Amino acid sequence: MNTLGHNFRLTTFGESHGLAVGGIIDGCPANIKLDFDAIEAELARRRGGNDETTQRQEPDKVDFLSGLLNGITLGTPIAFIIKNSDARPGDYECLREYCRPGHADFTYQARYGIHDHRGGGRSSGRETVARVVAGAISKQILKNQNINIAATVDSLAPQKPDDTRGGVISCRVDGLRAGIGNPVFGRLNAALAFAAMSIPSATAFEMGIGTAASTMTGSEYVDQWLPDGHTVTNHCGGIQGGISNGMPIEFRVHFHAAPTLPRPIDCLSSDGKISTIEVKGRHDLCHIHRLPVVVEAMTALTIIDFLNT
Amino acid sequence: MNTLGHNFRLTTFGESHGLAVGGIIDGCPANIKLDFDAIEAELARRRGGNDETTQRQEPDKVDFLSGLLNGITLGTPIAFIIKNSDARPGDYECLREYCRPGHADFTYQARYGIHDHRGGGRSSGRETVARVVAGAISKQILKNQNINIAATVDSLAPQKPDDTRGGVISCRVDGLRAGIGNPVFGRLNAALAFAAMSIPSATAFEMGIGTAASTMTGSEYVDQWLPDGHTVTNHCGGIQGGISNGMPIEFRVHFHAAPTLPRPIDCLSSDGKISTIEVKGRHDLCHIHRLPVVVEAMTALTIIDFLNT
Amino acid sequence: MNTLGHNFRLTTFGESHGLAVGGIIDGCPANIKLDFDAIEAELARRRGGNDETTQRQEPDKVDFLSGLLNGITLGTPIAFIIKNSDARPGDYECLREYCRPGHADFTYQARYGIHDHRGGGRSSGRETVARVVAGAISKQILKNQNINIAATVDSLAPQKPDDTRGGVISCRVDGLRAGIGNPVFGRLNAALAFAAMSIPSATAFEMGIGTAASTMTGSEYVDQWLPDGHTVTNHCGGIQGGISNGMPIEFRVHFHAAPTLPRPIDCLSSDGKISTIEVKGRHDLCHIHRLPVVVEAMTALTIIDFLNT
Amino acid sequence: MNTLGHNFRLTTFGESHGLAVGGIIDGCPANIKLDFDAIEAELARRRGGNDETTQRQEPDKVDFLSGLLNGITLGTPIAFIIKNSDARPGDYECLREYCRPGHADFTYQARYGIHDHRGGGRSSGRETVARVVAGAISKQILKNQNINIAATVDSLAPQKPDDTRGGVISCRVDGLRAGIGNPVFGRLNAALAFAAMSIPSATAFEMGIGTAASTMTGSEYVDQWLPDGHTVTNHCGGIQGGISNGMPIEFRVHFHAAPTLPRPIDCLSSDGKISTIEVKGRHDLCHIHRLPVVVEAMTALTIIDFLNT
Repeated sequence: MNTLGHNFRLTTFGESHGLAVGGIIDGCPANIKLDFDAIEAELARRRGGNDETTQRQEPDKVDFLSGLLNGITLGTPIAFIIKNSDARPGDYECLREYCRPGHADFTYQARYGIHDHRGGGRSSGRETVARVVAGAISKQILKNQNINIAATVDSLAPQKPDDTRGGVISCRVDGLRAGIGNPVFGRLNAALAFAAMSIPSATAFEMGIGTAASTMTGSEYVDQWLPDGHTVTNHCGGIQGGISNGMPIEFRVHFHAAPTLPRPIDCLSSDGKISTIEVKGRHDLCHIHRLPVVVEAMTALTIIDFLNT
Repeated sequence: MNTLGHNFRLTTFGESHGLAVGGIIDGCPANIKLDFDAIEAELARRRGGNDETTQRQEPDKVDFLSGLLNGITLGTPIAFIIKNSDARPGDYECLREYCRPGHADFTYQARYGIHDHRGGGRSSGRETVARVVAGAISKQILKNQNINIAATVDSLAPQKPDDTRGGVISCRVDGLRAGIGNPVFGRLNAALAFAAMSIPSATAFEMGIGTAASTMTGSEYVDQWLPDGHTVTNHCGGIQGGISNGMPIEFRVHFHAAPTLPRPIDCLSSDGKISTIEVKGRHDLCHIHRLPVVVEAMTALTIIDFLNT
Repeated sequence: MNTLGHNFRLTTFGESHGLAVGGIIDGCPANIKLDFDAIEAELARRRGGNDETTQRQEPDKVDFLSGLLNGITLGTPIAFIIKNSDARPGDYECLREYCRPGHADFTYQARYGIHDHRGGGRSSGRETVARVVAGAISKQILKNQNINIAATVDSLAPQKPDDTRGGVISCRVDGLRAGIGNPVFGRLNAALAFAAMSIPSATAFEMGIGTAASTMTGSEYVDQWLPDGHTVTNHCGGIQGGISNGMPIEFRVHFHAAPTLPRPIDCLSSDGKISTIEVKGRHDLCHIHRLPVVVEAMTALTIIDFLNT
Repeated sequence: MNTLGHNFRLTTFGESHGLAVGGIIDGCPANIKLDFDAIEAELARRRGGNDETTQRQEPDKVDFLSGLLNGITLGTPIAFIIKNSDARPGDYECLREYCRPGHADFTYQARYGIHDHRGGGRSSGRETVARVVAGAISKQILKNQNINIAATVDSLAPQKPDDTRGGVISCRVDGLRAGIGNPVFGRLNAALAFAAMSIPSATAFEMGIGTAASTMTGSEYVDQWLPDGHTVTNHCGGIQGGISNGMPIEFRVHFHAAPTLPRPIDCLSSDGKISTIEVKGRHDLCHIHRLPVVVEAMTALTIIDFLNT
């Protein structure tokens, strides 16, 4: 449940205001010299830094505990931890008996009969830091095979005073050869949808031209052949029948705005009382800028898992 | 790769113009009296019947080979087959050396070094008949728990002469209690996205209000509490943090038009020649009407798998 | 639960006196021409034929329903069925309310709240016919890679009048290169133990010298090096740290006697009454002779799964 | 590959002389108050302490990083690490180019093209410390359900001067109800065999009377009914058809002696030279005494995984 992948597997752990977050990568190929600077750079991308993004300032230093000898992968599990040095669990004391709207406090309580009220606990976006570490390693391995992944902010919801906003991330994979994917329940497009929708606040996934496809006739939609096996258009986003066709992989992911507003919010208590509470925790006005590196990480983890098959 | 689920598992097999399609259901609860009429009714829904849908006319008779004693489930694997009585593989002889545009002929060839040229082989929508059988059984079990699943055609692309068209299916699940789903890589919304995008010709998945969420501010998006734990709106589609919240599950799936047009099409040969070929095979002018029951089946299989955990 | 393997997967189905037994092989490499005569020959080995083995006489004809084009694998799921032409469920009518000793009637009833009283149902050795089909295909693929698997009857319990007997099967794999296996919970020896102990009536598994190792000192046990990387002895049976070392894989499997005796047996009713019942069903006096091909099949399925990783 | 279980999963990491060993437990039930003293006590059992056992002296302090709030499980992943405080990698410098006999140095090198020469790296028994932590938690949960697991040293190889020795561990589970296990590839006995054979130096697994069963007739072997559903004897070890029958689960595991002898040993270099080398590392004269708690841990992890289904 906290493991992604079959052959290149990431298992993550950690609550937002616990001691640490981190993960174990199992199935990483051996004899790869890791570029630790590249990992740090990816973490910096996730951390953001302008005024609109997170107010939480943590160095996100990664400690690798296993799986490496002199910085070279051994093929054994790579465990890593990132300490939550800037955790301030006390900020959330007022939420001990309340569930915020738009968050997972309520559903975790329903699922487990207990939930960590400190900043969303396991459901916080803080958890994605482990994905970014594993994604950075995956991207490095894919890059050695001339497979490149790039995601960017495609659009943002209108900015309004005192409020947070949603947006769209588009992602493109270049260099993936034709023939990657597995019918009928191992489709690459389905796995990418799963990976993207596993990111907190994702609301929609579009493969290729996505929603526009449903408004087209067959003549308009079908990608016509070029003699070299490529196609004139790439409406399908590089995947047919669940298998890559050699064109760039292209998809978009929609995200809703961060649900914690910078003002008092109406929370629900366990005995059915709705109270207006001002939560002190630090939150993103616009977390969308921090998401491209997360989308890239999830994409990289998905593709390397398929290639390892 | 051809298995869906962890605790309630469906493994399917079969090519469009081979001897049979079918599957094995493993993990079905014991002591359930199957309603075979309901299964046949679901197959009839999939088969369609008006002029715009499929020209292939098969009774789709299901033979159950195991897992039952006097129509009651034993808890052991339920194997079933549906013979391809109306297969006409000869119709596809002209495609032996060619790949059609918009189909998976090319990608299967790239993946396996061989492909079944007869009507798409394994990649044909014919394969979904096995999903519908398993989905019908799943729905019956869910209905016993007052969980109901209903999908409908939400919109269709404009009709044009001599052409096929895409469309949108919306789906709703009523009666699922709060607390179903598993963070962080076992999210119910991600699993539904995976299931939906595993349907041939799916191009986009929207959870709740889906793509519209990316254009909203937090204040506009967040579903506010009612004292009973329900919410005023259901923008999130009934799932928060990957776990159901007790509201109806709501999502939409976009599908592109059937890529086989009822006129000669430009196909690609293995030596890079593009030739215009008229394929005799029978095809849907609008397959969208046949998809609600498939969307329901994939939804039912996903939810029963989560409940069996 | 009825699926073996990760990359080369066999899912089986079927009760002893139901309509059919069979399975689906998923993950079989594409472009392999199957030798159907070899499959039939393996089934004949399993069927036995001398007086001491089974009294059930079935042709065990295999019908392949999918995954093949002109006898060549497509890479898609290979479904196959073997009809139970000689089933005589009526022979077991007397057992409808009783559980036999030494059989799984009682445990299936405890597990599922229902059980198929007809000849053991799913728990019957009849089910292994599907394993033998998949094993025959696996062995053919392994043989193409110069990997050969051979199992023989190592010893038999003393024969006594009017009784059944146990025995030991030894198995050897030649040609497996060093480096196959995965620490720490993906060990090849553990997977072989799992596969062997999954055969009905298996009671013990010995890797290499097996039980004798526990009576030795380190000096006596350790396999000393030869300069070519092989070892002087092969006490470990070709696997160290869960990974093959290039020596032959060697192990032994112990089996208890068939529990159905050719005389009246004391059975337990659901209300706690013990009655002496004479079951008409046909049973093996010595099923050990039929087991080498089953052990080979399970070994082949295990090794091909590791090689497909 | 480094993950055990499906519903209660343990993923472990760590090399013997790296920074730390540890693991992630995923699927642990929520709302359980952990007994940390009991965990420490289990680690002490594993550590041993008399002269014949390990010379390595480490406090084995466990740090829990996630999944707990005030010592109570949240249902989220429980990550834990144990630092290798007494690691002396320098002791193994002489082995950088050599593979020891009877160890996994050679097979890891063959598998990964690289291996950690420091004390066996990942293949060291040191790794079992993570299993013991997870096993201790599992046993606590099982004990709450009146399921108790106890393993003891059954026999030891004769002691000889200057040498190590093998032995046998027997294990018994009391309190497991009838009906636990899944045919045909999810058998409880097969899973126990897998778990036991996954312990370093295991060479054989015997279920119930084990190897003796192969020398018996059916009349001698079959466990006869008592009216309460129990049996007169327990030759089968409490499992029939892969499913528990309500009798105690009983099995034995054979282990070979520790392969590192307290004297110079003949090692193999990568260029095929055999040299006599004295390795400074600290090793067990008899590691058998440390194994009961490991066998119990693997048993507990297996059974809790089946119960969580």
